[in-house]
Amino acid sequence: MRLATLKIAQPKTPSERLDGRLAVGSSDGKYAVPVPAETFPNLLSALEDWEKAEPRLRSIDAQLAEGRAREAIDLSHAQLLAPLPRTFGWVDGSAFIQHVILVRKARGAQPPEDLKSVPLRYQGAGDYLLGPAEDVPLVDEAHGMDFESEVAVVLDETPMGVTPEQAAGHVKLLLIMNDVSLRNLIPRELSAGFGFFQSKPASSLGPFAVTPDELGPAWKDGRVHLELRTTYNGKLFGHPNAGEMHFSFYDLIAHAARTRKLSAGTIVGSGTVSNADESVGSSCLAEKRMLEKIHSGEMKTPFMKAGDVVEIEMLRDGKSVFGKIAQKIVAA
Amino acid sequence: MRLATLKIAQPKTPSERLDGRLAVGSSDGKYAVPVPAETFPNLLSALEDWEKAEPRLRSIDAQLAEGRAREAIDLSHAQLLAPLPRTFGWVDGSAFIQHVILVRKARGAQPPEDLKSVPLRYQGAGDYLLGPAEDVPLVDEAHGMDFESEVAVVLDETPMGVTPEQAAGHVKLLLIMNDVSLRNLIPRELSAGFGFFQSKPASSLGPFAVTPDELGPAWKDGRVHLELRTTYNGKLFGHPNAGEMHFSFYDLIAHAARTRKLSAGTIVGSGTVSNADESVGSSCLAEKRMLEKIHSGEMKTPFMKAGDVVEIEMLRDGKSVFGKIAQKIVAA
Repeated sequence: MRLATLKIAQPKTPSERLDGRLAVGSSDGKYAVPVPAETFPNLLSALEDWEKAEPRLRSIDAQLAEGRAREAIDLSHAQLLAPLPRTFGWVDGSAFIQHVILVRKARGAQPPEDLKSVPLRYQGAGDYLLGPAEDVPLVDEAHGMDFESEVAVVLDETPMGVTPEQAAGHVKLLLIMNDVSLRNLIPRELSAGFGFFQSKPASSLGPFAVTPDELGPAWKDGRVHLELRTTYNGKLFGHPNAGEMHFSFYDLIAHAARTRKLSAGTIVGSGTVSNADESVGSSCLAEKRMLEKIHSGEMKTPFMKAGDVVEIEMLRDGKSVFGKIAQKIVAA
Repeated sequence: MRLATLKIAQPKTPSERLDGRLAVGSSDGKYAVPVPAETFPNLLSALEDWEKAEPRLRSIDAQLAEGRAREAIDLSHAQLLAPLPRTFGWVDGSAFIQHVILVRKARGAQPPEDLKSVPLRYQGAGDYLLGPAEDVPLVDEAHGMDFESEVAVVLDETPMGVTPEQAAGHVKLLLIMNDVSLRNLIPRELSAGFGFFQSKPASSLGPFAVTPDELGPAWKDGRVHLELRTTYNGKLFGHPNAGEMHFSFYDLIAHAARTRKLSAGTIVGSGTVSNADESVGSSCLAEKRMLEKIHSGEMKTPFMKAGDVVEIEMLRDGKSVFGKIAQKIVAA
């Protein structure tokens, strides 16, 4: 099942403006059936009551698959928000070791000693998540804006102290993301110890949040065993496999829930997808710049500027699993 | 005006369970009038539409003050949640220089070089905020649980790039908080650079979120010029003045909004209230422990254990401005 969120043209309440209208998407990503507001007004409310919500949404999905959904609308005429346009919990970090090694080297910092035993995690701001085709506002080119292509899971309410085994049952949906970073603001923030703040503006989500069964055997051991393809200004930039994640999502959830419960709708991100095999390219500019420095002594690729376009997509048997993120950078 | 949130005894939806029922509190803190759900179901929805909400809430407040509010209930028979039981944005840090100097010294770390020019800020988890009398769950005494008494402001939607002058108009409510820390988990998390995560379990809020006019001249220059009184296991522990905050709340908001907008309901905290004058005591155990070490060579006061009780309150002309936080620590 693939879930999307439609922008409401004339919202009557702040929640309608900010949370949009939940919709069930067709298998080809071309159509969607809006879920009646009295059933579940938005995805966050559905996740808060997932046991009730899932069968009702799957019944709409079945109608759509059988061509019986008369309320289906053509998505080429609709505007999509992020499938989950805001959430109370957004937990990210770096679960790909190769990414940590390269970006730390790029800013002259050491990876933590416990890199391979304790996940690197930070609390992000989930109050505004951009839609898949929404422009990314750039305040100042000197901030060094970078894209970061990653995968993520969405949870229902997850108790404090869950084990990785228990965490598996709380993964309700999967996502792809563009977790934008402002590279030149990071060194000061991380050296002060309190983590990313100004250096992490709003992240963006792919069109569809999908149930794990949509991935078939590619969802295994709490990892997404598929290539994540990033295209930058029309050229393929990288296609590393997300299955190389050092920590599984189950490990990451257990780590996050160690001293507190996690709310329904919490998004847990993988961090930038990165492989040890350099030939597959990268999922962010910082890695490419570091590899350039290692191989030629000089970082050549600049960070993003207004007008740049980044696209992120994941294919399974040639079919787009999450739909495509396709965003333009615009001067704020 | 003083706003509280009542626990709904038999919630019909997850939102009723998690967001509670908004209520307008009386001046003496003894009574409150529940706001009809069709007016504003909860404080978060009111903050998202504050221009409409404020006059309606003030009209209820006027009825209550004049003894005309027949729906008023006796708060001694009601259970209060946090006035804002969850929020999409929780931004905290250390705006009191003395606190930063002492806690960094305690863990053998240097304060950042730009301590006095750039606010130390981190993104916190706002998905579960504990009520004023709710027990604080303690997973493991070895984590070194500490209270942190602080003040905070609540915003309406605040655009990216606001100046400190513009930020002033976005402060809609004020709060007191107990921002619990797990001191022994902090050194590893901060040395890895990604900031607090497991070391910051759920924070707690005082009973009433109040409009700035409730403070009279004590709300000035974006600071709360009143003593914050902390009592630990029945003994007065500290009463530093919150007006000694190095950065004003306006500075902190402008800093937070530099590269992204802030959602309605965002809470911006002062960090632990701390004064250069040691005779007024402290607002957390870590500072007292460090002062003990400086003066006697040895930290004597242990961190919290199950059964401990912490109370936090702010008085103006002898009257409790926010009501009292009174929490017990319990083994999880």
